[in-house]
Amino acid sequence: MHNDAIIATAHAMADAARAVVLPYFRTLDLSAENKSVSGFDPVTAADKAAERAMIEVLRAHRPDDAVLGEEFGEVAGTSGLTWVIDPVDGTRAFLSGTPTWGVLVSVRDQSGPLFGLIDQPYIGERFEGGFGLSQMTGPQGARPLAVRGPRLLADAILFSTFPEIGSSEEAAAFRRVAQAVQLVRYGMDCYAYALLAAGQIDLVIEAGLQAYDIQAPIAVIEAAGGIVTNWQGGPADEGGRVLAAADRVQHAAALKLLADV
Amino acid sequence: MHNDAIIATAHAMADAARAVVLPYFRTLDLSAENKSVSGFDPVTAADKAAERAMIEVLRAHRPDDAVLGEEFGEVAGTSGLTWVIDPVDGTRAFLSGTPTWGVLVSVRDQSGPLFGLIDQPYIGERFEGGFGLSQMTGPQGARPLAVRGPRLLADAILFSTFPEIGSSEEAAAFRRVAQAVQLVRYGMDCYAYALLAAGQIDLVIEAGLQAYDIQAPIAVIEAAGGIVTNWQGGPADEGGRVLAAADRVQHAAALKLLADV
Repeated sequence: MHNDAIIATAHAMADAARAVVLPYFRTLDLSAENKSVSGFDPVTAADKAAERAMIEVLRAHRPDDAVLGEEFGEVAGTSGLTWVIDPVDGTRAFLSGTPTWGVLVSVRDQSGPLFGLIDQPYIGERFEGGFGLSQMTGPQGARPLAVRGPRLLADAILFSTFPEIGSSEEAAAFRRVAQAVQLVRYGMDCYAYALLAAGQIDLVIEAGLQAYDIQAPIAVIEAAGGIVTNWQGGPADEGGRVLAAADRVQHAAALKLLADV
Repeated sequence: MHNDAIIATAHAMADAARAVVLPYFRTLDLSAENKSVSGFDPVTAADKAAERAMIEVLRAHRPDDAVLGEEFGEVAGTSGLTWVIDPVDGTRAFLSGTPTWGVLVSVRDQSGPLFGLIDQPYIGERFEGGFGLSQMTGPQGARPLAVRGPRLLADAILFSTFPEIGSSEEAAAFRRVAQAVQLVRYGMDCYAYALLAAGQIDLVIEAGLQAYDIQAPIAVIEAAGGIVTNWQGGPADEGGRVLAAADRVQHAAALKLLADV
């Protein structure tokens, strides 16, 4: 496999998404459709336009790869590689103006995610991991990514996007972990996974994720030395209930409080 | 009053804080003291060093003004003006690595806040308001600040820093508003007030604030056309329970659900 070409394609896709999405960010006439009947799940014009731009870049560079995107679904390929992309992960954050949404780009084979990146266009930050790479670039330049070392749950920092989490059973399980840690913070969307890879926090716990929400974070976190599983300790790359941890110590302790759901 | 000199001093203080604080941000050996016995309220070395740097700038430019700071308390003055500063508003955000903490600088007289700024050093964003100014600078350049127009509570976006809010009575009042709005988001600290001034969100509701947490936001939001009061509709500049709103429509509707606490 030509890893450098794959990495270059991922960056080109993220660059294309940045260029398309940023002009929509913090504009006042953002129209939001309702994707889901039951909840508030806005899709912006930015989201669709950026996914189109990313697929165009991919088609030009690597026409044989498959794509799974949030907006336009699946496109088959013949190479054995599938790109899993989400041009605006955190559409509620995007609508609210917080710089915590991200462009997610990842590529996988049948074994799971191989390479991923989390991009925050407004700040100008990009976190990437896979094929031996684990690094970020941002306003203060480049630096390597590495998770924090092991620590007790009582000293851990836990993030999730919103306190409701999912079903009442899922929320109750989350609260068991929340009550055991030092600090719980909300509202960061995919940015929380980037912070975990950067060694800032210990745990991210979410439920109800889609495959395209989590595959790039898995690649970035695993490359930085962390662990991402579902709440039973199995693979998380199809989404659903996700537990990301900085070390096996925090992972095992949180899993114990989540696993009976 | 020489407003331009006051504005220049505020920017010089924020610049000094940026320079001191940024080297501490996302460093791995951040030591956190416990300011309060009952809760987790870390103070970083950054916080203290930055407040010292800000006070030095102020002493050099305007030795007759008074200062109220988070770390070193009150310093008396003779000019009738008091600077109210918080070098790292959102120390938990700072420790977690989220770019949602801020440097708060404001100046007041006996009538209330006259000018304020909210600075996010990592992103390189600065929101300011007062003396006829209402603007921001950031990665995409400068733009004016203006709140959104009136809208129904059912269409409003509400922010608070954490879902526990304060006492159980305060939390219950908050939840009455939370249940009436379209979207609730957490985790933004002072950045939420900046987003309100930038026209992105409708309401920020918090409890248990200090004077130095809210005076700069009041100046920025009022200059952008918004309203900041306590939960009874009175002045909020001493902290406590705060309701910030983009318009009198959202303000009145939220106040109705909060005022009986």
